[in-house]
Amino acid sequence: FIRDTMEGVNSADISALLDEVSSEKAKYVIDILDNEVGAEIIEDLEEATRTKFLENFTPKEVADYITEMDSDDAVDIINELPAKTREEVISEIIDPDTAAHIHELMRYVEDCAGGLMAKEMIVANLNWDIVQTIEEIRRQRENVDRIYAVYVVDDKHKLLGKVSVKDILLANDNTHISEIYDEDVISVETYMDEEEVADIMQKYDLDVVPVVNLQGKLVGRITIDDIVDVITDQAEEDRQLMSGISSDVEEDDSIWVILKARLPWLVIGLVGGIVGAFVIRGFEDQIQTITGLALFIPLIMATGGNVGVQSSTLVVQSLANKSVFTDSLGKRLLKMVAIAMFTGLVLGSISFFFVYLYGEVKLGLVVAIALQAVVLLASFTGTATPLILDRFGINPALASGPFITTANDMLGITVYLLIANLLL
Amino acid sequence: FIRDTMEGVNSADISALLDEVSSEKAKYVIDILDNEVGAEIIEDLEEATRTKFLENFTPKEVADYITEMDSDDAVDIINELPAKTREEVISEIIDPDTAAHIHELMRYVEDCAGGLMAKEMIVANLNWDIVQTIEEIRRQRENVDRIYAVYVVDDKHKLLGKVSVKDILLANDNTHISEIYDEDVISVETYMDEEEVADIMQKYDLDVVPVVNLQGKLVGRITIDDIVDVITDQAEEDRQLMSGISSDVEEDDSIWVILKARLPWLVIGLVGGIVGAFVIRGFEDQIQTITGLALFIPLIMATGGNVGVQSSTLVVQSLANKSVFTDSLGKRLLKMVAIAMFTGLVLGSISFFFVYLYGEVKLGLVVAIALQAVVLLASFTGTATPLILDRFGINPALASGPFITTANDMLGITVYLLIANLLL
Ligand SMILES: [Mg+2]
Ligand SMILES: [Mg+2]
Ligand SMILES: [Mg+2]
Ligand SMILES: [Mg+2]
Ligand SMILES: [Mg+2]
Ligand SMILES: [Mg+2]
Ligand SMILES: [Mg+2]
Ligand SMILES: [Mg+2]
Ligand SMILES: [Mg+2]
Ligand SMILES: [Mg+2]
Ligand SMILES: [Mg+2]
Ligand SMILES: [Mg+2]
Ligand SMILES: [Mg+2]
Repeated sequence: FIRDTMEGVNSADISALLDEVSSEKAKYVIDILDNEVGAEIIEDLEEATRTKFLENFTPKEVADYITEMDSDDAVDIINELPAKTREEVISEIIDPDTAAHIHELMRYVEDCAGGLMAKEMIVANLNWDIVQTIEEIRRQRENVDRIYAVYVVDDKHKLLGKVSVKDILLANDNTHISEIYDEDVISVETYMDEEEVADIMQKYDLDVVPVVNLQGKLVGRITIDDIVDVITDQAEEDRQLMSGISSDVEEDDSIWVILKARLPWLVIGLVGGIVGAFVIRGFEDQIQTITGLALFIPLIMATGGNVGVQSSTLVVQSLANKSVFTDSLGKRLLKMVAIAMFTGLVLGSISFFFVYLYGEVKLGLVVAIALQAVVLLASFTGTATPLILDRFGINPALASGPFITTANDMLGITVYLLIANLLL
Repeated sequence: FIRDTMEGVNSADISALLDEVSSEKAKYVIDILDNEVGAEIIEDLEEATRTKFLENFTPKEVADYITEMDSDDAVDIINELPAKTREEVISEIIDPDTAAHIHELMRYVEDCAGGLMAKEMIVANLNWDIVQTIEEIRRQRENVDRIYAVYVVDDKHKLLGKVSVKDILLANDNTHISEIYDEDVISVETYMDEEEVADIMQKYDLDVVPVVNLQGKLVGRITIDDIVDVITDQAEEDRQLMSGISSDVEEDDSIWVILKARLPWLVIGLVGGIVGAFVIRGFEDQIQTITGLALFIPLIMATGGNVGVQSSTLVVQSLANKSVFTDSLGKRLLKMVAIAMFTGLVLGSISFFFVYLYGEVKLGLVVAIALQAVVLLASFTGTATPLILDRFGINPALASGPFITTANDMLGITVYLLIANLLL
């Protein structure tokens, strides 16, 4: 009965449902379905659900499901298993092709092109004719869900180009691949970072990209659906770094997991606040004598923080878009200063006006000048920090996070009180 | 000469180069290239470059390039033109199919499925055989760059299913489409929001999705490359909202454009700071008498801000992932309170310890209690704000932006000083 009702329902929907039920019930549902459908469902489960879920299966059962999957997904799932189960499952894989593919793919770093690629693809030799090629497509039809393109290689398996299924479909039987293939093929190397692969596929509007090794030999292909996941994960990582949440947590994770991801950043922020207290204490006499000086600490802090985050986000965005600048570094710096000066002028004037209304002309000047200085400083650190982080291979989105912004806040207070000390 | 060197170079690379040179030079390069290659290059230019660039062309020339493009890109570019040029260009389009497609597509809202779809696709009638279908593929080969799937419709053009090119390739000539087509086809409606389309394509790992109108008639298709752009734009929009930059600016925009996008948010933050000054002024007597009270204002502000941003980001993430929660709202609320209480306890203890070292036991208690209250309050507003924004159709990432965080900062100071007022 379940089998009947589930037929025609998409596997991704079944997975979403099974994420919510107990592992035993889920196993019951999967057991009565086709191995192929079961494999798709297992693939689409959330990682945490899948881990618990696969504990109920024997290594043999897991191996059977894995054999049904694309090699990239198979390896991802094997890598999630505990070390011992992993060995057991691999030894239970009967199909020699699958075993060979999995062995090869397990070698690659997870977030590089090699870790994203799959072995399922149609490869044609330069010297084949259309009949031979269609023969190969027939032979591979079981393994390849979607034929994106047929890759053309020489006798040494070096990637030479590609030929579209459309062109094969429209050519005469005795045409040779060498006559119709397209030499312009964009490929990536196994060691290329996943985000670089994403940039290339996006720039050239690719659905699939072939992967070659150091020797230029065709070793796999990456499809756009996996790259869409890379892009989405990257967006999530950026948001988390910008808001001071370490590691990949979600709202429905356990309290302890969430606390572990949040507390360290909050403690860093707190330490910043304690440093701020010491700074203010250093100027305590002044705060006691000059009524009104303390009033504008929050204003200075908030503005410095906001300007810094804006500046760093613009840089993060340029880095993400791989913007090429025609302007020299000097010109860009000048532009940054111009924007900061104008911003400081506007914000300084507004606040001078308010402090003036409050009856304190001199204090108004101090606040205005301090704002100007803080805006300039925050623009500079906000622009420089992501560039420096990026240079060291750290995600620059961290620069908009609480650590850097807290540091900026404290810097802002110091500048404000120093200027007050000088001018009052 | 240029033509020779440029052959074999990808159009996206040429566009990246032309983005950097003057419009006249760029026109010179494009004029000597094929119309088709020229069209691709124009498509790939940055919007600002393209606008300036197309001013150098006659409406007839623009119309010729547009005829070479996919209908979705053609309409996007027509929509960028000034109203008068737009009319002129449309009237210069000779090909009746292109003209009809453009007229139809211009009706749809830009950020809905209708605004993303193109008309280029292969459609087969249920009753055709393989020979007729291949005939149609041949006929359409000029218009369709990549054949993703052949869509199957009835006599009323109602979408019934799809059939893969692979299956057509492998079937006998006299097989009918009705015998081999697949009824399980996921489609989207013309009025569906682009982000919903992105979610569906990502969930089901689709490269292409057919678009149907209210009557279920097949009207177009959306390809994944355009959805990748939607996802990337969304990530950019989130980052901008989280950092208080309105509208879609980039580092290399003009100073005035950047100022216009940044200043409003900074002024809002400044007004928040001025409100904060009034709040502190309300407690001025106390700040004057209790030495040390002012020292911890930055600490309270920073912590409240950080907690609020963390909370709202977790909610934004759940909303982005369309997480389904098994827990009831009450349970989620309880969890939020538990996390906040524990966080407050840890941060409160650390700061109590420091203030105690400073020699002020009572003040230490006030800071610790205020932190507990501020963490709880910030968790609550941080969680609630994105949910409320989302309910009203506003991007919830705004909740991590400077407006809300500044409001939280000021709320935090008020709570701190109120508690001090009560306990000291
Ligand atoms: Mg992998
Ligand atoms: Mg693109
Ligand atoms: Mg395109
Ligand atoms: Mg895959
Ligand atoms: Mg990464
Ligand atoms: Mg995740
Ligand atoms: Mg459009
Ligand atoms: Mg997916
Ligand atoms: Mg898949
Ligand atoms: Mg398109
Ligand atoms: Mg949008
Ligand atoms: Mg943009
Ligand atoms: Mg702040």
